Amino acid sequence: MALRISDKMQVVRGSVIREMAEAAATRKGTISFANGNPSSDTFPVEDFATFAADAFREDPDGILQYGLSQGYLPLIDTTKERLHLKWGIDFEKNDLTIVSGGQQVCDFASKVLLNEGDVVIVEEPSFSSCYNTFRAYGAKLVGVPMHPDGMDIDILAQRLEEYPEARMIYVIPNFQNPTGYITSMEKRHQIYDLAVKYNVAIFEDDPYCEIRFTGEDLMPIKSFDTEGIVVYAGSYSKTMAPAFRLGIAVFDKSLTSRMIVSKQTTDVHSSLLFQYITNRCIKERDYEGHLEYCRSVYRKKSELMYNELVRTMHPSVRVSRPEGGLFMMMFLPEGCDSLPFVWEALYRGVVCVPGSGFMIDQDAPCNSMRLCYSTATEEEIVRGARILGELTQEWLADK
Amino acid sequence: MALRISDKMQVVRGSVIREMAEAAATRKGTISFANGNPSSDTFPVEDFATFAADAFREDPDGILQYGLSQGYLPLIDTTKERLHLKWGIDFEKNDLTIVSGGQQVCDFASKVLLNEGDVVIVEEPSFSSCYNTFRAYGAKLVGVPMHPDGMDIDILAQRLEEYPEARMIYVIPNFQNPTGYITSMEKRHQIYDLAVKYNVAIFEDDPYCEIRFTGEDLMPIKSFDTEGIVVYAGSYSKTMAPAFRLGIAVFDKSLTSRMIVSKQTTDVHSSLLFQYITNRCIKERDYEGHLEYCRSVYRKKSELMYNELVRTMHPSVRVSRPEGGLFMMMFLPEGCDSLPFVWEALYRGVVCVPGSGFMIDQDAPCNSMRLCYSTATEEEIVRGARILGELTQEWLADK
Repeated sequence: MALRISDKMQVVRGSVIREMAEAAATRKGTISFANGNPSSDTFPVEDFATFAADAFREDPDGILQYGLSQGYLPLIDTTKERLHLKWGIDFEKNDLTIVSGGQQVCDFASKVLLNEGDVVIVEEPSFSSCYNTFRAYGAKLVGVPMHPDGMDIDILAQRLEEYPEARMIYVIPNFQNPTGYITSMEKRHQIYDLAVKYNVAIFEDDPYCEIRFTGEDLMPIKSFDTEGIVVYAGSYSKTMAPAFRLGIAVFDKSLTSRMIVSKQTTDVHSSLLFQYITNRCIKERDYEGHLEYCRSVYRKKSELMYNELVRTMHPSVRVSRPEGGLFMMMFLPEGCDSLPFVWEALYRGVVCVPGSGFMIDQDAPCNSMRLCYSTATEEEIVRGARILGELTQEWLADK
Repeated sequence: MALRISDKMQVVRGSVIREMAEAAATRKGTISFANGNPSSDTFPVEDFATFAADAFREDPDGILQYGLSQGYLPLIDTTKERLHLKWGIDFEKNDLTIVSGGQQVCDFASKVLLNEGDVVIVEEPSFSSCYNTFRAYGAKLVGVPMHPDGMDIDILAQRLEEYPEARMIYVIPNFQNPTGYITSMEKRHQIYDLAVKYNVAIFEDDPYCEIRFTGEDLMPIKSFDTEGIVVYAGSYSKTMAPAFRLGIAVFDKSLTSRMIVSKQTTDVHSSLLFQYITNRCIKERDYEGHLEYCRSVYRKKSELMYNELVRTMHPSVRVSRPEGGLFMMMFLPEGCDSLPFVWEALYRGVVCVPGSGFMIDQDAPCNSMRLCYSTATEEEIVRGARILGELTQEWLADK
């Protein structure tokens, strides 16, 4: 006897990114550019340990009993204050809850705003775990190609016209996963205006905004969302620690009760201990200094990888040059499938994720691959980038 | 401009239980029989603090970086071993993952097994947060009344006949929430046989099984699930700490990839620190002794509440006598709505949750209320039970 699987879960596949990362872990000595993890060097472990010990000693009940579904109130206040000061987000109009990672904001936004059969318009390539979240609610994905300054606005406009069942646009405006691209301010406004015109929600996924290491900050779409159509996802995963599983959901107050019920019906509340620790790190430590340190780590690593690639790779290969975040994307010439290249690279000791893993159709050929510079050591970055660069020379020798 | 809320989330309401608990918190000096929390006295805080400190010192990366979506492998093994030894669950045939609370097992079972419009047959009354989880996937609920030995089997059979779109039966076999009832072994088999006959899944929600404080353990339905149709939810919330948010999902191996993708698309993984601590508490401490201590705490509290109620309440009032778990249910005479009674009790300083909060239709009158004895002190339990008992005398004086 076999249970029937729900229609929506029939079509969802596992994460290629996680599979590549696990493949890397099983091969000793492999240099991994696959994991999108932050660097362990950036974790303020001493502070974490101190504050954890305080919590167990001073208020064990406060961190061990059931907590509020909206989050730990002091961290909510601290986070609102930061988002208001940095991005001018208006908390008269919006609400904020702490959830279990940015991914869970995507889950709740989908639960609250999508019916089965609705269309979500997505940047393509993009973070495939969010593609899967939309699919798990029975949504259909329609892609819009990415340019270095954000999604193609003409095609976005066309798609909105073509698909009246579109209910959401999915955007990663800063240091996009996997391309590393930044959506320009002009395009942020254009995307918003189109969303308003077609009465479509925007899911603005912004986990990397705190780690811009060069150039000027751009305001999130949420900052000028007068109509209340943007659900914004922030994260403490990249600046505290991923296993804290702390995401930030910002949304119009009309959605509050549904966002809280979403939490009640899944994991009830997020870790009180990690919310407590995060709040104390921000309030009592030099949090701006910590962020500056994180940025310096990624700036250095990013430059090492970029320079070594540019120095060694075949002239027909292109690589994005990130201003923040954890990764860049390498593009083989058009028409050259990256999948066999990625396998050959793995054989030579470097693992990265083929671009097809970020496409709606993961089986179609794709000429790109995502390179994370966050977790490898500086020495590994240079060595790994050189292996990749030299491999492109061999690979494309006859082209 | 207002975003359209998804059809499924239009019908989901907040948790009355959480609202009553929060109402209680705002009134100083109120005795709360509302919270279904475990007693803070049972938390082995010293062990938690020691193991947390070890983790931060010895393996910070191991608890701070992204973890596997299926859970922390040592705790998976430990939990399998316990479930195999205690209940004979077969892990050749079944898989086990660690998730963020028992509630999340319900969320994933719903995601993987329910289409919109499917029917879930539920015990009524039952845990309304799971009702809401089913609703959040667009399922319709059909109730089967509860007896002290479990759901009414004749009516269950009728419902299965009447509703060919039924895909799941929701059962809390031990110390049911809110009644405290135990489903008899005979009925466990009858429910299973009916589920097999109609090809319907069973969601067996068993968070309280470790805290049976009198009588003999009964085997879970999962233990004789030869057909692979039972999704079983266990929990560490009641025996470690609720804010650990650690639940146990046991399911047929045919569901493994979908259960893991469900995790990837929501909160990615559960707390590694709390999984590490839980595993060490079980492996290195006297965990059986700890469970025995938890049981002794609830046995004592349960008896104090039961005896004081029986001593003081009006003879036409009935109260369930639990053999485990955290609560009992008090029943006013048929036709007597408990809601005004609960408000009067709150006015006199005792808060409990009206039975209507556990019904499919929360607006219909209901003659019962749930009384949790887990968090109040022994003195408060006696005093609060007496207030309730004496109030029934006044309330029913003319009947």
